Amino acid sequence: MDRRVLPLLLLTFLAPRAAIALQPALRTLSSLHLSTSPTSQPAVVKSYSVFYFRQKVDHFGFNNVKTFKQRYLISDKYWKENGGSILFYTGNEGDITWFCNNTGFMWDVAEELSAMLVFAEHRYYGESLPFGANSFKDSRHLNFLTSEQALADFAELIKHLKRTIPGAENQPVIAIGGSYGGMLAAWFRMKYPHMVVGALAASAPIWQFEDLVPCNVFMKIVTTDFRKSGPNCSESIRKSWDAINRLSNTGGGLQWLTKALHLCNPLTSQDIQNLKDWISETWVNLAMVDYPYASNFLQPLPAWPIQVVCQYLKNPNESDSLLVQNIFLALNVYYNYSGQAKCLNISKTATSNLGSLGWSYQACTEMVMPFCTNGVDDMFEPHMWNLKEFSDDCLKQWGVRPRPSWITTMYGGKNISSHANIVFSNGELDPWSGGGVTKDITDTLVAVTISEGAHHLDLRANNALDPMSVLLARSLEVKHMKKWIREFQDSVKKQQ
Amino acid sequence: MDRRVLPLLLLTFLAPRAAIALQPALRTLSSLHLSTSPTSQPAVVKSYSVFYFRQKVDHFGFNNVKTFKQRYLISDKYWKENGGSILFYTGNEGDITWFCNNTGFMWDVAEELSAMLVFAEHRYYGESLPFGANSFKDSRHLNFLTSEQALADFAELIKHLKRTIPGAENQPVIAIGGSYGGMLAAWFRMKYPHMVVGALAASAPIWQFEDLVPCNVFMKIVTTDFRKSGPNCSESIRKSWDAINRLSNTGGGLQWLTKALHLCNPLTSQDIQNLKDWISETWVNLAMVDYPYASNFLQPLPAWPIQVVCQYLKNPNESDSLLVQNIFLALNVYYNYSGQAKCLNISKTATSNLGSLGWSYQACTEMVMPFCTNGVDDMFEPHMWNLKEFSDDCLKQWGVRPRPSWITTMYGGKNISSHANIVFSNGELDPWSGGGVTKDITDTLVAVTISEGAHHLDLRANNALDPMSVLLARSLEVKHMKKWIREFQDSVKKQQ
Repeated sequence: MDRRVLPLLLLTFLAPRAAIALQPALRTLSSLHLSTSPTSQPAVVKSYSVFYFRQKVDHFGFNNVKTFKQRYLISDKYWKENGGSILFYTGNEGDITWFCNNTGFMWDVAEELSAMLVFAEHRYYGESLPFGANSFKDSRHLNFLTSEQALADFAELIKHLKRTIPGAENQPVIAIGGSYGGMLAAWFRMKYPHMVVGALAASAPIWQFEDLVPCNVFMKIVTTDFRKSGPNCSESIRKSWDAINRLSNTGGGLQWLTKALHLCNPLTSQDIQNLKDWISETWVNLAMVDYPYASNFLQPLPAWPIQVVCQYLKNPNESDSLLVQNIFLALNVYYNYSGQAKCLNISKTATSNLGSLGWSYQACTEMVMPFCTNGVDDMFEPHMWNLKEFSDDCLKQWGVRPRPSWITTMYGGKNISSHANIVFSNGELDPWSGGGVTKDITDTLVAVTISEGAHHLDLRANNALDPMSVLLARSLEVKHMKKWIREFQDSVKKQQ
Repeated sequence: MDRRVLPLLLLTFLAPRAAIALQPALRTLSSLHLSTSPTSQPAVVKSYSVFYFRQKVDHFGFNNVKTFKQRYLISDKYWKENGGSILFYTGNEGDITWFCNNTGFMWDVAEELSAMLVFAEHRYYGESLPFGANSFKDSRHLNFLTSEQALADFAELIKHLKRTIPGAENQPVIAIGGSYGGMLAAWFRMKYPHMVVGALAASAPIWQFEDLVPCNVFMKIVTTDFRKSGPNCSESIRKSWDAINRLSNTGGGLQWLTKALHLCNPLTSQDIQNLKDWISETWVNLAMVDYPYASNFLQPLPAWPIQVVCQYLKNPNESDSLLVQNIFLALNVYYNYSGQAKCLNISKTATSNLGSLGWSYQACTEMVMPFCTNGVDDMFEPHMWNLKEFSDDCLKQWGVRPRPSWITTMYGGKNISSHANIVFSNGELDPWSGGGVTKDITDTLVAVTISEGAHHLDLRANNALDPMSVLLARSLEVKHMKKWIREFQDSVKKQQ
């Protein structure tokens, strides 16, 4: 397979880029333990044991008898064999140790819930590769990378834990996940309610499919974040695209842009779309990690990074060149907060790793999320969602075509009111909240909104700078989890 | 593949035979329209249209892009575009026209519910063959024969119907099925509650797996049916096995047995186990179709056929030869009620058809149902459940090994209380009731018991000789269905 196809596809406008956006994990896979730095997780030492469980490669057929080892992590420091509980992280598109280290919430509540923590790695990510180095070789090897197979892995793993850990058998399990992992947590409770008493689905855009929500809602929220973070900020960005377009068409413009933006490699005219996509993606990422304290999730960043960025973007009516120079200063906040970067690199090859390969395939099969912009309700260049084009790109890259209606068929779309015991939490700053459940559906399908929260802020470790809204959200979440645990214990007592 | 392997496996003691028992359809696939005879369906003329819907062969992977045509039948005589409903038969292991003709209940209630009737054929049965004549060729072709794939077919088909039939979109769908089809109806409601507002699962042994129920419960119920149908009846059968054993060991015994039982082919000493299995299976089948009126489900039979059979089995203390002669008279009720048969054939080759092939594979993969006898609580020769032996036989026949715990992992075993709107009906005479849900689980997971009912009597057409218990059951079932429909309509109104 031509390796160049991947970055090209990932950079193709909007949809594939947004697919990246869902997997913040992947950009930092190469620096996995950054998150344990004192800045982001000051309080709890994360000590866990690593295990492997042999899973069928294909849960839904009997011809293929191959198995692979799924990695999972366990921390039982606060677990009580009697009266305890199990918090089960439904791993998403990346190395599970990274999620383990970035889900401080579970560590923070372990003692209160006498909980064993389990972090299960998603197949085709991290070390859980069904065919080892060949896992991404072609569509035949990728055939078993689906959400249904991943959920079945979780079910088999929970059965295994209950069978083999003395005391675990009669304990309530709660699924927890964020982003795609939050979708998996919710879907796991929907499809295997006999396995988990409830699910906390943080920042889980389960409705970012088909026409369940308007395709421009995601970029609208990104825009709102910038509009609210500084005067004229979103307007400056909106105007920057034409400035770049005009400059790139002037004599020496490409050279000037390369220098003004401190790019590592000289721009060619073919790069202009890539450049704009890369900049757009930066704004998207900033919206996702607009946390109230200095953090290191996607990049080392200051507190409220969009406010910092917006300090450079106050005047949309400047000349093209001044506007672009300010854009550089803004980008530099994201890419060079540490002051180490000598230049900025718009090539995405550095982020090509197993994780991003896997998600690119998933986005081309089941996880088809339509995105669009119109340049009016949002600050981006207008771009329609084009399924045909997307599908052709997928065929070219992976040899498969997407099945855009499948997720709705399988998981119910908006018609999920017959389920119970799921908390959907969303941060209002998080662009993914546009595809999330932000209103209560029933008494037991509950929406928790975090007005000052970006992407699954609630799953992060306690921090002195946490705003009230996330403290409230976490306490509500714990309240629900305790209720599920109590109901489980009551029903066990009744049976005795 | 050696064709002889199949009958040998199917005749191997108990488990595989019971696997046959679940599929009454299959023995009569060669005479599909018998059931439309005036005896069994006197009232309603079953007129339907036949359609085909293109399904993915593999719903759970993207590498295989093959499709096949799933057959389905529609009757919309009583359907109302406004305020109507859709009754969706979740087809089981056989030709769908046969189930359509043998599910008179749906036809009888269509007018009252203003219902469209849909009968969906199960993949790998009838005309719905994913690989045409090659569908049963090997484990590679059989790989897509699973309950999960069948449920996904149903989901896609319902979406298709709602999309293409004007008026259907906003109508409540109810899943209905009997036996394995009843299991599918219940599982469909559990896994796709967004597709159906409820399910009627008639005689669905969803707990006949692993150790959810004692493995001897099935044959105990068969025995009870015979014990209650005539004095000394079950005791005579219990004694018959040793009589056959002794006779087969005497000089000329095989010849004598051949003649006394009017067998078409001379017995050899290797046939004795087959002979006893064939006789056991006859008693099992009689227990399943012990209906209160003359019927033609598995065979043309008189009303309460076990009572008729038991008239010949009153004296367990007769000589071996008299006992066997009486066994013949009893068997003759089942095999020759019409008086046409010249001899009895213990060979099962006549029933080898696509249907029985399919179920044999399913029993060897997902549908692993442990059966056993002890000769004390039941009237059969003692036989333990031996998974190892069963698994080896499956490997020999199909090249696959069973996964006995999978159905419980997937569908929850006894831990299903979080679901809603399923009626489980069971006849107390039906041996499959032993693996069924016979007590209410919650207010909305309801058990309906038919004291005088054999295998899904409630799904059969109204009959003047129907006992009160089945009339009550049907009226309860209709009451629940009307409630589901009403709740659906209320929720639609609320959204408007």
